[in-house]
Amino acid sequence: MSRNFASDNNAGVHPDIMQAIIQANEGHVVGYGDDPYTEQAIAAFRNLFDGDIDVYFVYGGTAANVLGLQTMLGSHQAIVCTDSAHIEVDECGAPENFTGSKLVTVPNRDGKIEIEQIDPLMEAAGFPHHVQPKVISISQPTEMGTVYTVDEIQALAYFAHQNNMLLHMDGARVSNAAEALNVDFKTFTEHAGVDVMSFGGTKNGMMFGEAVIFFDTGLGGDFKYIRKQGMQLHSKMRFISAQFSAFLDNDLWLHNARQANGMARYLAEQINDMPQLELTRAVETNGLFVTLPPHIIDPLKAEYFFYMWDAAQNEGRWMTAFDTTEEDIDRFCAAIRRLV
Amino acid sequence: MSRNFASDNNAGVHPDIMQAIIQANEGHVVGYGDDPYTEQAIAAFRNLFDGDIDVYFVYGGTAANVLGLQTMLGSHQAIVCTDSAHIEVDECGAPENFTGSKLVTVPNRDGKIEIEQIDPLMEAAGFPHHVQPKVISISQPTEMGTVYTVDEIQALAYFAHQNNMLLHMDGARVSNAAEALNVDFKTFTEHAGVDVMSFGGTKNGMMFGEAVIFFDTGLGGDFKYIRKQGMQLHSKMRFISAQFSAFLDNDLWLHNARQANGMARYLAEQINDMPQLELTRAVETNGLFVTLPPHIIDPLKAEYFFYMWDAAQNEGRWMTAFDTTEEDIDRFCAAIRRLV
Amino acid sequence: MSRNFASDNNAGVHPDIMQAIIQANEGHVVGYGDDPYTEQAIAAFRNLFDGDIDVYFVYGGTAANVLGLQTMLGSHQAIVCTDSAHIEVDECGAPENFTGSKLVTVPNRDGKIEIEQIDPLMEAAGFPHHVQPKVISISQPTEMGTVYTVDEIQALAYFAHQNNMLLHMDGARVSNAAEALNVDFKTFTEHAGVDVMSFGGTKNGMMFGEAVIFFDTGLGGDFKYIRKQGMQLHSKMRFISAQFSAFLDNDLWLHNARQANGMARYLAEQINDMPQLELTRAVETNGLFVTLPPHIIDPLKAEYFFYMWDAAQNEGRWMTAFDTTEEDIDRFCAAIRRLV
Amino acid sequence: MSRNFASDNNAGVHPDIMQAIIQANEGHVVGYGDDPYTEQAIAAFRNLFDGDIDVYFVYGGTAANVLGLQTMLGSHQAIVCTDSAHIEVDECGAPENFTGSKLVTVPNRDGKIEIEQIDPLMEAAGFPHHVQPKVISISQPTEMGTVYTVDEIQALAYFAHQNNMLLHMDGARVSNAAEALNVDFKTFTEHAGVDVMSFGGTKNGMMFGEAVIFFDTGLGGDFKYIRKQGMQLHSKMRFISAQFSAFLDNDLWLHNARQANGMARYLAEQINDMPQLELTRAVETNGLFVTLPPHIIDPLKAEYFFYMWDAAQNEGRWMTAFDTTEEDIDRFCAAIRRLV
Repeated sequence: MSRNFASDNNAGVHPDIMQAIIQANEGHVVGYGDDPYTEQAIAAFRNLFDGDIDVYFVYGGTAANVLGLQTMLGSHQAIVCTDSAHIEVDECGAPENFTGSKLVTVPNRDGKIEIEQIDPLMEAAGFPHHVQPKVISISQPTEMGTVYTVDEIQALAYFAHQNNMLLHMDGARVSNAAEALNVDFKTFTEHAGVDVMSFGGTKNGMMFGEAVIFFDTGLGGDFKYIRKQGMQLHSKMRFISAQFSAFLDNDLWLHNARQANGMARYLAEQINDMPQLELTRAVETNGLFVTLPPHIIDPLKAEYFFYMWDAAQNEGRWMTAFDTTEEDIDRFCAAIRRLV
Repeated sequence: MSRNFASDNNAGVHPDIMQAIIQANEGHVVGYGDDPYTEQAIAAFRNLFDGDIDVYFVYGGTAANVLGLQTMLGSHQAIVCTDSAHIEVDECGAPENFTGSKLVTVPNRDGKIEIEQIDPLMEAAGFPHHVQPKVISISQPTEMGTVYTVDEIQALAYFAHQNNMLLHMDGARVSNAAEALNVDFKTFTEHAGVDVMSFGGTKNGMMFGEAVIFFDTGLGGDFKYIRKQGMQLHSKMRFISAQFSAFLDNDLWLHNARQANGMARYLAEQINDMPQLELTRAVETNGLFVTLPPHIIDPLKAEYFFYMWDAAQNEGRWMTAFDTTEEDIDRFCAAIRRLV
Repeated sequence: MSRNFASDNNAGVHPDIMQAIIQANEGHVVGYGDDPYTEQAIAAFRNLFDGDIDVYFVYGGTAANVLGLQTMLGSHQAIVCTDSAHIEVDECGAPENFTGSKLVTVPNRDGKIEIEQIDPLMEAAGFPHHVQPKVISISQPTEMGTVYTVDEIQALAYFAHQNNMLLHMDGARVSNAAEALNVDFKTFTEHAGVDVMSFGGTKNGMMFGEAVIFFDTGLGGDFKYIRKQGMQLHSKMRFISAQFSAFLDNDLWLHNARQANGMARYLAEQINDMPQLELTRAVETNGLFVTLPPHIIDPLKAEYFFYMWDAAQNEGRWMTAFDTTEEDIDRFCAAIRRLV
Repeated sequence: MSRNFASDNNAGVHPDIMQAIIQANEGHVVGYGDDPYTEQAIAAFRNLFDGDIDVYFVYGGTAANVLGLQTMLGSHQAIVCTDSAHIEVDECGAPENFTGSKLVTVPNRDGKIEIEQIDPLMEAAGFPHHVQPKVISISQPTEMGTVYTVDEIQALAYFAHQNNMLLHMDGARVSNAAEALNVDFKTFTEHAGVDVMSFGGTKNGMMFGEAVIFFDTGLGGDFKYIRKQGMQLHSKMRFISAQFSAFLDNDLWLHNARQANGMARYLAEQINDMPQLELTRAVETNGLFVTLPPHIIDPLKAEYFFYMWDAAQNEGRWMTAFDTTEEDIDRFCAAIRRLV
């Protein structure tokens, strides 16, 4: 099957990751993470950050978010996020269901949340009828493909901590953000004041597996139980761990993100040359939002499956992946031009 | 690393499964299960049973149990199981946490539950202070390695349905039970009256992935939402599906189970020749429960990691896997004899 | 202490209700609702409606809403309501916590929800990443004191049922709505298509106790267990039941609501004569929303405690109660005039 | 209706309590507990103990237990109690449902739990597959009417704290225990090491209302939110508070408990004179467990409704109340003698 632009999770597994999986399939090791592959992967993460962090692997991205959040608040407290956040829109209510708490949303601004939107929510403090804001959750990059600057994250973390709150980052595509910012991970996470983050692998070339990272290690202490209760403790853990080791080794994460982001820019250039199509948002990572002539939507979807972002506005979303090539994009653009 | 006897999930992945994973890694396919690999795997399951069933794949065994149970009862209802059930002992409270309901346990009899133990619980019916029994959950094989006969399952299903209850089966090792019973799957599940089951793959040679099967398809209707809310919808679903296709193809499941069960019998024979060791339970599948001379426990664990089942009784649990060989067992027994 | 205007729950208990409580305090009766007082109160409710309804008493209004909703949906489904709904704003996340589901909100229009706002939410149907809308919950009267017309409720019910959803009504102040509409209860509830409602007593002269009414009796079947699990089964139930009997007897509910609504109209007339104050919403029941000169807010609150509705706009909320008198209002208005 | 022996909650309200309710029904006060009646009742509780405690009022006893427990543990932790505990048997799964955690039970010994039963459960510590014991919950008096001695409670508290656990007391009938022990409340609660307790009023002459007391005030900090989310914040709080003030005033609690306990002893004496009946447990408070000649059970229940404790053993439970008189018992015993 050819490569499409519906989502970066329509891609398969990077060959280096697959190789690591095959190599991990040797003999018996103790289950549930007490194995040398996991030890090595955790060490690689500690090397990526300042060392004194807690790292846990889970199966998927929704779980990484939900279980991380579970450690950060009680059920009478609230998670503040945008109305476009993955935790609000795309997790079928898992955050509320598992944490027992409430999401309080504000309208997104290019996918981001701003302090002036959060500040009025602080009025709930101390009033027992209202859930108590405890966590600010941001996506980096956002669901719109935009990227918070280091300064923006620092400001949000400062505001959170000043108000006795914590900062959570959904980093399902955090490699793409790091590539776009051109800084290392810790600059815009650990050093910027993030307390807990989801660190994604699956959307950037892994088969399965995401990491939950606790920069505030006081929060991670009981996570091994929460992970099990959250149905996310893999028995054959080595097959997640080996992937992450390969992912961090030789900057494979960066190599993959660079390809995906670069191809998004390349596709954006082509679209800018098509007067009937219009990019509705800046292309900062690997997602593109494009308004299309209505008559081409169905025939194009028949050739290249993708999702409409705002059907009423004829706006579709396209994503590039670690394995997208210039040739893929040229062929896709040729199809568009033919249909237009 | 050499093969040990701590658990069948200490084993790796069967080469045929690995080959299927590699072959599935071609190009892009739509995520979340709308792909040809998943279509094929579901067809293979439908072929295994009477066709009119709902099949869903999840990441792990705890989730298969918990999410399946979630469809079977409301929070004010109860799950009846033995005190040794995996859902009671080994899932860190996930069943109560996710379903919001209560587990009501009875003492196991060789791992099994008997109708005469459940019958008195029916007195709770209609009394609003008491949770209302709604599901009987059995493990096949049990946590003690014993196997319910077809008649036993039929009787439990009949009792359940007569009392407006449902029958759930935790089949994390169901292949081992089928091999031991020497009947096909549907004889002791679908045809015996089971309503919902977890069908395991990971403990019998897969990398990750379990199936939830609804024989009562009225229960499975909303499972796609429950799976997502339960944080178990894999985006790159093809990598679970391709494994299950290989697992069911050419009876790989049976080949693997036969090896594991056969090696357990072979190990049991060796132990029977060692007067200082004693098997505490009949060996019906791939688990052995053995009382050991106290002085050999620690040195043996140092060579071959395993878990104590009942430390106070010096009883350990050993498990064979799909890849256990006679040579592995001979070497293991030599170590035991040396230490004794 | 004098009567204030902070909320109708700052009032005490109507003398007829107190008398009923005192009379119920005779000898022993069976607990938990199997008593003649409860039988009589349920009969009174059945008489008020078309008879074939389920009625259950709980302690408080938040519980009436939350436990009623719990019977109407699964955790993967959603409750649609306005951003001003009591269940969204004022119940500290109890609906999400107890039902495990999600609230999906739309901006209120004078406290109301409109079908054109709900219609786009139907796009989530069938998409497993999104919670599935199942219940529309309205407040009658709304938190803004406005009242849905019979036609509006009928239209919402029709839309809900056409879309496989249910209609829930938070009737914490439903007596005030009935008085304002000048129709009997069943016209704008049972006959209009409401499926489940909270029927309030406490805000209209009772000491404690609310009713959950199931017009769709299929939904009420297991409520006795849900009520107990929801920690709302009163052991000495007769003391709620006797209140409700008195509340429905001789139309005490109407007498009380008429007084509260009438006094709100009387207060509104006074305010209309004060050029420095402005009513921001139509006064349809017993709540008034008023913008105040900033300098009088604190001194007035010192004399008459009340809540600001929108502090940024200097908008306060005043409520009249069943025991508010013209003299109370004259004295209150004199205080305002003095401060202005 | 005459007084029966089914439960102490079949009784009505003590006249002094009713008088307090009537007196509290004066004018308007601020809702939700910011009123002088509540201030006074809390002061009375602080006076009863050593002062530095947190006290909150809720509607009912199940809620007092469940919401208190919610503050003491996370969902991955476990509550250890006997198999006869009210939280295990009689709350329709509310503890699991609301806290999301698990109850781990041991067989009761005359209603009590013993340290030697809890000690083996500590083996779960650190093992992520098992819920982590965090709270020991005892009932004082127990569901069997027995009373823990001060020494027993001290020992349990010491064991709990040594093992990083907390001690919870279900004191639904704590007045009866205090009367039986003939010591003041704080001796066997606060001073003995209890961390959180439910302090009951309803079963000893109140109309509704129970208190949750935090001796470990670090645990009570967020309770005002948990109470609201738990649907237990009464708007007209003064009507609970005024009852508690009267309950503690002039030792009304003791007067009532003395009557109930004394009448239980009196009834026990009568039963001891009836050779066909047998007390199966020591009568330490106000509950009696009696095996009855089978042929009298139904006719006696027709005259005096009561519950069977163990129907298979023809064992019934009778309870005396604050308003039981010698005449009530004489008449009851006459009925028994007639039927025998």
